[in-house]
Amino acid sequence: MDIKQYMQNVGKAARAASRAVARADTNVKNKALTVMAAAIRRDAAKLLAANAQDMDAAKAKGLDAALLDRLALTEKGVAGMAEGLEQIAALPDPVGEISDMNYRPSGIQVGKMRVPLGVVGIIYEARPNVTADAAGLCLKSGNAAILRGGSEALHSNQAIAACVREGLAAAGLPETAVQVIETADRAAVGELITMKEYVDVIVPRGGKGLIERLMAEARIPVIKHLHGVCHVYIDDEADLDKAIRIADNAKTSRYGTCNTMETLLVAESVAARVLPPIAGIYRAKGVEMRGCDRSRALVADMKAATEEDWHTEYLAPIISIRVVKDLDGAMDHIATYSSQHTESIVTENYTKARRFLREVDSASVMVNASTRFADGFEYGLGAEIGISTDKIHARGPVGLEGLTSQKYIVLGDGQVRG
Amino acid sequence: MDIKQYMQNVGKAARAASRAVARADTNVKNKALTVMAAAIRRDAAKLLAANAQDMDAAKAKGLDAALLDRLALTEKGVAGMAEGLEQIAALPDPVGEISDMNYRPSGIQVGKMRVPLGVVGIIYEARPNVTADAAGLCLKSGNAAILRGGSEALHSNQAIAACVREGLAAAGLPETAVQVIETADRAAVGELITMKEYVDVIVPRGGKGLIERLMAEARIPVIKHLHGVCHVYIDDEADLDKAIRIADNAKTSRYGTCNTMETLLVAESVAARVLPPIAGIYRAKGVEMRGCDRSRALVADMKAATEEDWHTEYLAPIISIRVVKDLDGAMDHIATYSSQHTESIVTENYTKARRFLREVDSASVMVNASTRFADGFEYGLGAEIGISTDKIHARGPVGLEGLTSQKYIVLGDGQVRG
Repeated sequence: MDIKQYMQNVGKAARAASRAVARADTNVKNKALTVMAAAIRRDAAKLLAANAQDMDAAKAKGLDAALLDRLALTEKGVAGMAEGLEQIAALPDPVGEISDMNYRPSGIQVGKMRVPLGVVGIIYEARPNVTADAAGLCLKSGNAAILRGGSEALHSNQAIAACVREGLAAAGLPETAVQVIETADRAAVGELITMKEYVDVIVPRGGKGLIERLMAEARIPVIKHLHGVCHVYIDDEADLDKAIRIADNAKTSRYGTCNTMETLLVAESVAARVLPPIAGIYRAKGVEMRGCDRSRALVADMKAATEEDWHTEYLAPIISIRVVKDLDGAMDHIATYSSQHTESIVTENYTKARRFLREVDSASVMVNASTRFADGFEYGLGAEIGISTDKIHARGPVGLEGLTSQKYIVLGDGQVRG
Repeated sequence: MDIKQYMQNVGKAARAASRAVARADTNVKNKALTVMAAAIRRDAAKLLAANAQDMDAAKAKGLDAALLDRLALTEKGVAGMAEGLEQIAALPDPVGEISDMNYRPSGIQVGKMRVPLGVVGIIYEARPNVTADAAGLCLKSGNAAILRGGSEALHSNQAIAACVREGLAAAGLPETAVQVIETADRAAVGELITMKEYVDVIVPRGGKGLIERLMAEARIPVIKHLHGVCHVYIDDEADLDKAIRIADNAKTSRYGTCNTMETLLVAESVAARVLPPIAGIYRAKGVEMRGCDRSRALVADMKAATEEDWHTEYLAPIISIRVVKDLDGAMDHIATYSSQHTESIVTENYTKARRFLREVDSASVMVNASTRFADGFEYGLGAEIGISTDKIHARGPVGLEGLTSQKYIVLGDGQVRG
């Protein structure tokens, strides 16, 4: 198989299909989505059999337990994919929305129309459900999609792809509107991220290694999610009940998510009151604590944090803790160490809340809420294709709107420029 | 001079200054802008003397007339820079604008806040007025700026930079909020476009050569303007007066601008009525016509267009002309050859106007208006840092808003995620 030629063909077909998808009526796109969902439900046994094949191969290769866990499809997982597609069908169509139409002195009327990006390339790892989610989100937002899943999920992804194609065909859309790469060859990724003429944006869903490869090699804009080093700052005017509840939830409700708090910052004047009860909770839940000297003076079993700890996304039951002078000390720490994903302040002080919201430069900035809320569903986007830690185009959870852009439209009556 | 070290220092200073600019009150930014304007007016003689130095050197080097024209500062040009800064001061401040705040089922309130991008790197060529414009736009949008002008304008740019620093200092802002690179060494550009830790976005203002270098070498997002191959399509239901007026203005009002029409498309059923009078206008204005066989059958002195003509941004009194079957033929031509900058349809038919607006994938799409309107001032943005032919982040004229992004803000009362 000539990978370069194969990917060029995929790209060319995607570009051609993107015009049809961009102008498709909402009803047509929704029909495709609901037929996809029905096909997935009907083919549940086929999907599970294909997944069993992938699981057997993965086990034979000795892949680790975490990966096997992500790779596994269950009956519930299959039903979840179908429901996800139906939920996307129920979301409002972002394409064609017109806003800010105003008359200008010349007599022309100028505004913006929301439009698809064109062709979206998605690169992801083990989880086969991403195939259905990404296909659905790209289609609803009027984009053609090229999906490149992990080689370990090849059979699962192809089985899901057949259902996706069935939906597209039933709605009269080109089957090439969603293409799932059929080769496990890693060279396909290299082609995908450099085919400027056929691909408009790359959305990677994977670990740091993948993102770093893309940052070095991609020649196409990437909506990227680097990592989440999230902070909670407990201010000296915090309500202590809220502070303890949020510090607990932000760290311990799930350890492996990007919106989990990694570093707790505490104002020095309340540290003696706040840290011992919070440490008690962490201790009871088996969370390893690593802190600055002042934190350690208050909590006997806390290890010393190193410079590296402040930079680390643990994705594990470990937390770093630091006592800071005040709001400015907290914001300085965040400006230095944050990955600009999500930060929260706990305070009852209006002015400090307002400053934190304005001055902290992260994709999500919160007052008196757990960082764990940084999520497309919680924010009301309906679904998310990823969470962006970039500053241009889209920041934070990326839903349908993040897969679109706005063009200018101008309505005139024969105006010319003087 | 160690260019790498110099640029690293510039980057570090810009990153530090960006925090101060991001949180600066509107009044403070406006004061800086008005003091800059006053300093430029006061120092007009100094600026003209510095520019004369650049002009002498450029002439001695034998640089071409077009470049000398762009390099030259006049008294009027100096006054224009000062007025431009005052106009930017008068624009609404985009920073901190909050939108779409909604309560979610969990009780948290979620919305978006408009925020600066951080540090903007601008790379431009001869025109010294870009130094003042770019400084003003970046400052008003809350960004720190690193400006890298053409080596031929070094003295002019440094003289303007002194006025910019005076304004920043008078408002109590760090002088490093706007830094004008002091070396003509081209290696400085290579550093600027790869200092990921210090620069958030690059805005090039220059020719295709510069843009192509950035596309190959930049490691930072680029808001780029590749080129403008703009089309006007005269539909069979066009009002012929409007069609002729627009075809004239779009081509001949200025030849060197990116929003000038390069290719005129005409529906076959009206070609015989439309093309002869339009050709008469072009002929009278000395515009060279290159057309398809069917156009040439109607206009005796038209040369044959080659495949390359359909791809070419002439920036000169040359036009390519093609007879197409209908709207779909026009949209197919545009999809194949357009640079996705600006396209206009001339028609009185509602449904065709609506289809053209929806289906043509360009930064500006117009009905019954000259492509020459694609411009930040004409659109009401107040000023523009450039025109983007990209699809992500910003399309079309980029004003203050294009130099910002939106972060999510979340207001809670101690909510945690279940």
